[in-house]
Amino acid sequence: MVKVVKTRVEFEGRFRDEYTVVEGEPLEGWSPKSGLKIVGRPHPRVDGAAKVTGSAKYTHDVYLPGMVYGKFLRSPYAHAKITHIDASEAEGLPGVLGVYTYKNAATLGFGGAEKVFKQEVTYQGDVVALVLAQDESVAEDALELIRVEYEPLRPLVDPEEIMGLDSSKDRIVGPKLYERGDLEKGFAEADVIVEESFKTQAALHNCMETHGSVAHWEGDNLVVHTSTQSVFNVRSALSEELGIPQSKIRVVSEFMGGGFGSKFGAGEYTVVAAAAARLLGRPVRIVLDRVEENLATGNRSQTVQWVKIGAKRDGRITAIHLKGLVNVGEDGWVADLGGPAKMMYHCPNVKVELYGVKTNLVSSTAFRAPGYVEGDFALESAVDELARRLNMDPLELRLLNYATRDPVTNSEYSSKALREAYLKGAELIGWRSEPRVVRDGAKIRAKGVAGAIWWGGGGPPAYAEVKVNADGGVTVLTATQDIGTGTRTALAQIAAEELGLPFSSVRVVLGDTITELRSPGSGGSQTLASMGPAVRAAAHDAKNQLLEIASQVYDVAKERLTIREGSIFRSDGSVLCSVGELLGNLGDFSVTGRGAREPNQEGYMVNTFAAQFAEVEVDTETGTLRVLRLVSVHDSGMVVNPLTFTSQVEGGVIMGMGYALWEGRLVDGESGVVINPNLNDYLVARCSDVGEITPTYVEPEDPHTNSLGVKGIGEPPIIGVAPAIANALREAIGVRLRELPFTPERVYSAIKGINPRPTTAKYL
Amino acid sequence: MVKVVKTRVEFEGRFRDEYTVVEGEPLEGWSPKSGLKIVGRPHPRVDGAAKVTGSAKYTHDVYLPGMVYGKFLRSPYAHAKITHIDASEAEGLPGVLGVYTYKNAATLGFGGAEKVFKQEVTYQGDVVALVLAQDESVAEDALELIRVEYEPLRPLVDPEEIMGLDSSKDRIVGPKLYERGDLEKGFAEADVIVEESFKTQAALHNCMETHGSVAHWEGDNLVVHTSTQSVFNVRSALSEELGIPQSKIRVVSEFMGGGFGSKFGAGEYTVVAAAAARLLGRPVRIVLDRVEENLATGNRSQTVQWVKIGAKRDGRITAIHLKGLVNVGEDGWVADLGGPAKMMYHCPNVKVELYGVKTNLVSSTAFRAPGYVEGDFALESAVDELARRLNMDPLELRLLNYATRDPVTNSEYSSKALREAYLKGAELIGWRSEPRVVRDGAKIRAKGVAGAIWWGGGGPPAYAEVKVNADGGVTVLTATQDIGTGTRTALAQIAAEELGLPFSSVRVVLGDTITELRSPGSGGSQTLASMGPAVRAAAHDAKNQLLEIASQVYDVAKERLTIREGSIFRSDGSVLCSVGELLGNLGDFSVTGRGAREPNQEGYMVNTFAAQFAEVEVDTETGTLRVLRLVSVHDSGMVVNPLTFTSQVEGGVIMGMGYALWEGRLVDGESGVVINPNLNDYLVARCSDVGEITPTYVEPEDPHTNSLGVKGIGEPPIIGVAPAIANALREAIGVRLRELPFTPERVYSAIKGINPRPTTAKYL
Repeated sequence: MVKVVKTRVEFEGRFRDEYTVVEGEPLEGWSPKSGLKIVGRPHPRVDGAAKVTGSAKYTHDVYLPGMVYGKFLRSPYAHAKITHIDASEAEGLPGVLGVYTYKNAATLGFGGAEKVFKQEVTYQGDVVALVLAQDESVAEDALELIRVEYEPLRPLVDPEEIMGLDSSKDRIVGPKLYERGDLEKGFAEADVIVEESFKTQAALHNCMETHGSVAHWEGDNLVVHTSTQSVFNVRSALSEELGIPQSKIRVVSEFMGGGFGSKFGAGEYTVVAAAAARLLGRPVRIVLDRVEENLATGNRSQTVQWVKIGAKRDGRITAIHLKGLVNVGEDGWVADLGGPAKMMYHCPNVKVELYGVKTNLVSSTAFRAPGYVEGDFALESAVDELARRLNMDPLELRLLNYATRDPVTNSEYSSKALREAYLKGAELIGWRSEPRVVRDGAKIRAKGVAGAIWWGGGGPPAYAEVKVNADGGVTVLTATQDIGTGTRTALAQIAAEELGLPFSSVRVVLGDTITELRSPGSGGSQTLASMGPAVRAAAHDAKNQLLEIASQVYDVAKERLTIREGSIFRSDGSVLCSVGELLGNLGDFSVTGRGAREPNQEGYMVNTFAAQFAEVEVDTETGTLRVLRLVSVHDSGMVVNPLTFTSQVEGGVIMGMGYALWEGRLVDGESGVVINPNLNDYLVARCSDVGEITPTYVEPEDPHTNSLGVKGIGEPPIIGVAPAIANALREAIGVRLRELPFTPERVYSAIKGINPRPTTAKYL
Repeated sequence: MVKVVKTRVEFEGRFRDEYTVVEGEPLEGWSPKSGLKIVGRPHPRVDGAAKVTGSAKYTHDVYLPGMVYGKFLRSPYAHAKITHIDASEAEGLPGVLGVYTYKNAATLGFGGAEKVFKQEVTYQGDVVALVLAQDESVAEDALELIRVEYEPLRPLVDPEEIMGLDSSKDRIVGPKLYERGDLEKGFAEADVIVEESFKTQAALHNCMETHGSVAHWEGDNLVVHTSTQSVFNVRSALSEELGIPQSKIRVVSEFMGGGFGSKFGAGEYTVVAAAAARLLGRPVRIVLDRVEENLATGNRSQTVQWVKIGAKRDGRITAIHLKGLVNVGEDGWVADLGGPAKMMYHCPNVKVELYGVKTNLVSSTAFRAPGYVEGDFALESAVDELARRLNMDPLELRLLNYATRDPVTNSEYSSKALREAYLKGAELIGWRSEPRVVRDGAKIRAKGVAGAIWWGGGGPPAYAEVKVNADGGVTVLTATQDIGTGTRTALAQIAAEELGLPFSSVRVVLGDTITELRSPGSGGSQTLASMGPAVRAAAHDAKNQLLEIASQVYDVAKERLTIREGSIFRSDGSVLCSVGELLGNLGDFSVTGRGAREPNQEGYMVNTFAAQFAEVEVDTETGTLRVLRLVSVHDSGMVVNPLTFTSQVEGGVIMGMGYALWEGRLVDGESGVVINPNLNDYLVARCSDVGEITPTYVEPEDPHTNSLGVKGIGEPPIIGVAPAIANALREAIGVRLRELPFTPERVYSAIKGINPRPTTAKYL
């Protein structure tokens, strides 16, 4: 029978009750010592072939008969008022089925139409009009026939400028404050104080698959194919915007090409496609192109940070103060830059003050470890400077100030093996066995280190079903997502392990609300740690039923039966029957096991940790910086699949390198126009840019968090990459670079002690 | 916990054990007296709008990017050997991706390739070659470029001719025998003996949606959209033919345009599409056109039947002997023509001998009440003749010989209200209150009656889940099919009724093996009686959980809570909370109720019954026969939705009229070629052809079969329509027509006592 579990949850300083409905009893936890046969071993992705052969069906591949194409006209101005708009010529173009602007958007029939179609556009890329047409080229032609007159208004895009303007107080959000101990006292006790300021740029997600949705109605039932990290979030949003119950909406995202935090909800394209499809009685497809994607779907926030750290002469940190500005664009959220400052070190006196600044840019959004990537860059660069000032090995300084309990709550960690990660990484990079700087003509090689912390462990609600078919094959039913991380593969391993059936016999279904199995959004490194235990519980239930059925059919006590490698064994080691035989004889029947994610054990802090070691090479004649090697060592609890772990780490590290070296949205400071909303000018890493990456892990037991002992690996790989590189660069050239990205011009200028040439283009 | 229920089942004379796995306790049965609020009332179809607006997505509507079109080249001969085949020119046509004949079919890579592509074609429409091309017109052009030389062989298409040929013994299947009592003694006791022979024609299903499948692979997972009556049958067949586990196959048929027995399994088009898609790494679509459909997907068997009935002078039937020939085409199944003869009447001495005859026509297949439509025509025509010979009212004769226990097993009926149906129909048609023959110039109006019997009550395996969402909306999950019968609507009523939630809040999901909820094929009048109880059980489980959760959250004893109209009530009649409130506060959670169909109570015979009354008008100058009125009264147990009941009866009756008056496959007796494989020459009823239909029901309580008391309404409406019309026609013109269909020419010839003009075209 169902059981309601109540947990007290703190959210932004307030406590509230959360309920989880579970069934059955909690399972004994797995650990690396559990003698597992399938979990913990490398398995190639079960959907790898489908992806590389192009047979996997993404949202972009959905074409329906009679489908209508929707295209947005977007503002070329960062800030302007529409003084005149005339869509009549566009409406008259043969093949055009409708044009919507702020004047008639309400007729589209969804709640927030007036927020999407505005008379005053407030960022470049803001929606001005929508064209619905029978094919894509007609829609594009029609966009050009819409006559719009704008009265340009002054755009504000630079937070530092805005902080200085009295007239822009309402653009400032916050401060968001955190304080523990006595900051003044802490600095008073310090023998050495480092004060540094840092700037980080806005970064664009550039998912392989751009944002998009295809919506169609079957009577009063809506079906939406969409590229999303949370099919249920999209469903709730559509339910609200369109005013129909959730049960009438099906959201599908079986394959999706990356989200990185930018695809957690229903986009304007989703809601508008659904509303337009209802209006026209035809399927509607709205898929953004790369430029739209990069102008209008959000970004990692640009930040300005001031860090002050005090320490005793022996290296013990006495105080940390972080002040940050976060460029939230139109109306983004103030990402927590202070996470690392609060959580990384055992330090009694900490203060964080964060200000969000609203600008005439698209709203910033979540992006792989939001806030932590930026905040860790500032903190870990400053800690490195502190080590220099103290004449200490920066690794030793980190170990000296190692937190053995969570500094914020004073809770025990569910598990923490960051120390082991540091030591393993140091060994692998030759931190102590080799010189940390080597000169080779005009080139200098050097090493740097940084630590990383993130959340982990997942949690409820997460539900799964495991079906064992008449031929012994297994279907794992979930409605989670695989955003490219290997969810299908890991869940298949877990089900196979628990059931005692072969890995190859398992198929995992996900990305479809039709199953109605609630799952959390795929982000925050939560997917495996949330869904994995639910799948294990469902597999356990299915196994129990298999044994119960075998017991009844063969008249053997259930306690004497076990399942291994597809067969049911008696306690004397003899085979009773194969699972396929048992079920095949039962006729058309599938065993259905159900599983719910139990809440985490209360009282423990669950974090993931990483130690990042970089070896870089600087060409002092050109300023070119190359990462020769990056050793990335993780404490993410148990690793279910070392192969997909490796992919996750490589992907995260490469993204971190891009952030450190090349990526950055360039905005014209005068007009507020984005200069590089494309993949020619916005530089993501190419294979040839990337050096050797060594992903590895330490694997602590973690019996407190979930029945798998896993904590999550989505975010940690990207955190700490930039400061590890920054610290190595500092080691190489003797100058600290405080602004990301480290372009050749910036590195060259730093080496030569000159200022980069002035330009109106800013990394915002 | 799961419970395995073992039942002994007789199948073709042998007993075997069948297992059903169930959970929970059986529910108390519903009956028309249960005070139901939603069940038993008329509700328009929940998917009606989607269907009439064209938004419902049928297999024919599935177009996938990169999709390849498959077309079959089919034999123009009924029997021939391919002496030479050259596909090179077709293969060379730009856009052609492959051509397959018996020579290279094995390379398609499925089990039965050599059975599909043969060197000796054995019926017109048999597969000769397959073209795969990038679009449909290229495929069609390529078909014409395949050079085939045939050596025509003698086709045999007429069973009566074959029975007379010594050389064709191996074409005869059977006899299939049934015997009870002592037939000779029975006839010896008789005062009156009627001996009649009858012929019925082959009829074509002519589903609105022709047979077809679209197959695509995602890596090693196969997805097949197909128009089918059983997604799980298709899945098993594909698993076997392609050699992959069932869990790797997803079969989808959310909307389908009729099956009538012709779509129970994977067609050649399905298996070939799946194999070709695997080979090409691209989606493959094979959809038959109307002519292919009518040549190659089966038909109701043509039959020849001899009936002999003996009775005492008082009307008591003493013996029934039925001998039948069934034209099974290439390799069809011998439909049970003897069902009515064995089951309709209380008669101690019965013998049935059936012979299947293999001919050079496509294999016959199931078609709405297979065998019973044909057999009931012969039996009920003969019984009418018997009444004439006895000078009895044919209705009285039927009531006199009414079976109060099943004559075959001597079991009690679970319920039987055929007597009430006869009386109700007689009342409605004015059987006793009006003259049964009225002359009006050259036109004669007359009435006839016939009884009908079929199986019913459904059974396991059938599994369902009922989910209640956070906003109080309900999703019913099944993998059954809605072949046009209104399954979605009836299941929604059942779930809403059991849950105490509004009908409008329920959405029913079906036609997708992804849910892994085993369901029986939709046919044999089994769907509602099988799935309905499973849905009710699942809804009951969900309701129980809702009450349990409410009890735990609000700390009220569960026994004091009930759900009505969307709210949870305390026992004092006050509202505790709405279901939406309860779940909304629990966060992202859906209640999942599960239900399994319990086996029927043993020891009862479950049958459905109908009384059909026809009033016809014959134009004696033209032979035109018009059915002015057809009163169709059913005992199908409880009626869940009187509106969809009405549609079912109207559809069945119209199909029965078509069978009686117009439909029939015409085959050239010499060449074996089908003359009318299309909708110009094969005459299905138009609206203007159909008179007034009065569908109605008697509604016995049936506590023995399932928790709903429903028995099924798919088949019964078509049974007995032809004999009711035949008997009315006999009443009108004084001559009995013994061959279907009753074309104007045949009726005219009968009236005039002349022979129809000779032709080589035969109704075969």
